[in-house]
Amino acid sequence: MNVIKTPLEGLLILEPKVHGDDRGYFFESYNMRQLEALTGYDTAFRQDNQARSVKNVLRGLHYQNHPTPQAKLIRVLEGRIWDVVVDIRKSSKTYGQWYGVELSAENKLQFLIPHGFAHGYAVLSETSEVFYKCDNFYDKAAEGGVYFNDPALAIDWKIDISKAIISEKDQKQPLLKDAVNLYE
Amino acid sequence: MNVIKTPLEGLLILEPKVHGDDRGYFFESYNMRQLEALTGYDTAFRQDNQARSVKNVLRGLHYQNHPTPQAKLIRVLEGRIWDVVVDIRKSSKTYGQWYGVELSAENKLQFLIPHGFAHGYAVLSETSEVFYKCDNFYDKAAEGGVYFNDPALAIDWKIDISKAIISEKDQKQPLLKDAVNLYE
Ligand SMILES: Cc1cn([C@H]2C[C@H](O)[C@@H](COP(=O)(O)OP(=O)(O)O[C@H]3OC[C@@H](O)[C@H](O)[C@H]3O)O2)c(=O)[nH]c1=O
Ligand SMILES: Cc1cn([C@H]2C[C@H](O)[C@@H](COP(=O)(O)OP(=O)(O)O[C@H]3OC[C@@H](O)[C@H](O)[C@H]3O)O2)c(=O)[nH]c1=O
Repeated sequence: MNVIKTPLEGLLILEPKVHGDDRGYFFESYNMRQLEALTGYDTAFRQDNQARSVKNVLRGLHYQNHPTPQAKLIRVLEGRIWDVVVDIRKSSKTYGQWYGVELSAENKLQFLIPHGFAHGYAVLSETSEVFYKCDNFYDKAAEGGVYFNDPALAIDWKIDISKAIISEKDQKQPLLKDAVNLYE
Repeated sequence: MNVIKTPLEGLLILEPKVHGDDRGYFFESYNMRQLEALTGYDTAFRQDNQARSVKNVLRGLHYQNHPTPQAKLIRVLEGRIWDVVVDIRKSSKTYGQWYGVELSAENKLQFLIPHGFAHGYAVLSETSEVFYKCDNFYDKAAEGGVYFNDPALAIDWKIDISKAIISEKDQKQPLLKDAVNLYE
């Protein structure tokens, strides 16, 4: 597995090693021991989620913090997405900065998002299946959100925003300056 | 999540709850807390694997035992497979018996295979992606195998065996009566 650093401290991109043969291929999509050795993170994930979306669906920006902060390991099983995080650690030198990466079933890249980031994605292909692992259980009361189109963030979502399919909840998320339960 | 018992003790089929909306759907494919509460198993999985195969590929029968016994939670991300286990617990009333279930991206069923079973599958669709979680790391030295077509097992593989695509290793697996490192 390759580990690629990003400009935002602690945010990593992982590239698994795929073994091909005449039956197809095989790969370890997650190995706790290897991941801990390579990244130093506690990666004992407790929940896996999977979401299917059609083209132009935009989910986010979401985070989960106090008292159940949530780190995520994101990858794509079908199709292509533009996956985006925003640094919401108030003490961070890069607070409010965003970073994006294209994840696809083909490139098999994984986005390791530690505590301290808001996350969202836009679907680039006709359909997509996104899979992610979490280190803490879903806790509705600890969920937070930031408006995806907050001008202060100026995120390039790589889709035509006028065609985006967005949940009611996400259309009403607060601007970053008004968001609650951010990370210290 | 629904939990369905099978005729082999300890072997379970799980059916997750899918939330649909106009974006697509969302479901928890694994929740450690819920799974432990419903099954009583320690389900702290440490490794995830994914394998792609073309039609008529047959992988198995495999198991991992002493000193690193491995339980598996199997599901299908794309396509359809016929998933089979054999009870290899020498003290079991159903020792040597097999059980099969069709797993598909559509039915989203999961096969929870505790310690004590050999496992394999045949691919029914043009292509398939199989995903599985393991409670113990891969340990080549602790791997065991049983010949898929052992007459004493008489497994119905649901494909034309004369067309099966099988690794060299799996074509040479021992009969159950000669297999080593079985479970007590
Ligand atoms: C996140 C989550 C949701 N749910 C349920 C609640 C809803 O009935 C349904 C969909 O939930 P939404 O909040 O609409 O999910 P979504 O907007 O897609 O956001 C989710 O996917 C993208 C992720 O970035 C985000 O953290 C996560 O909340 O699933 C669960 O049962 N378990 C969960 O872990
Ligand atoms: C099982 C496993 C394999 N590998 C490597 C070894 C080979 O280079 C490659 C493929 O391994 P095979 O032994 O050929 O795998 P396969 O015959 O497909 O069997 C696997 O998938 C089906 C499972 O039932 C079985 O336990 C597992 O061994 O992947 C890993 O790196 N990690 C693993 O966990």
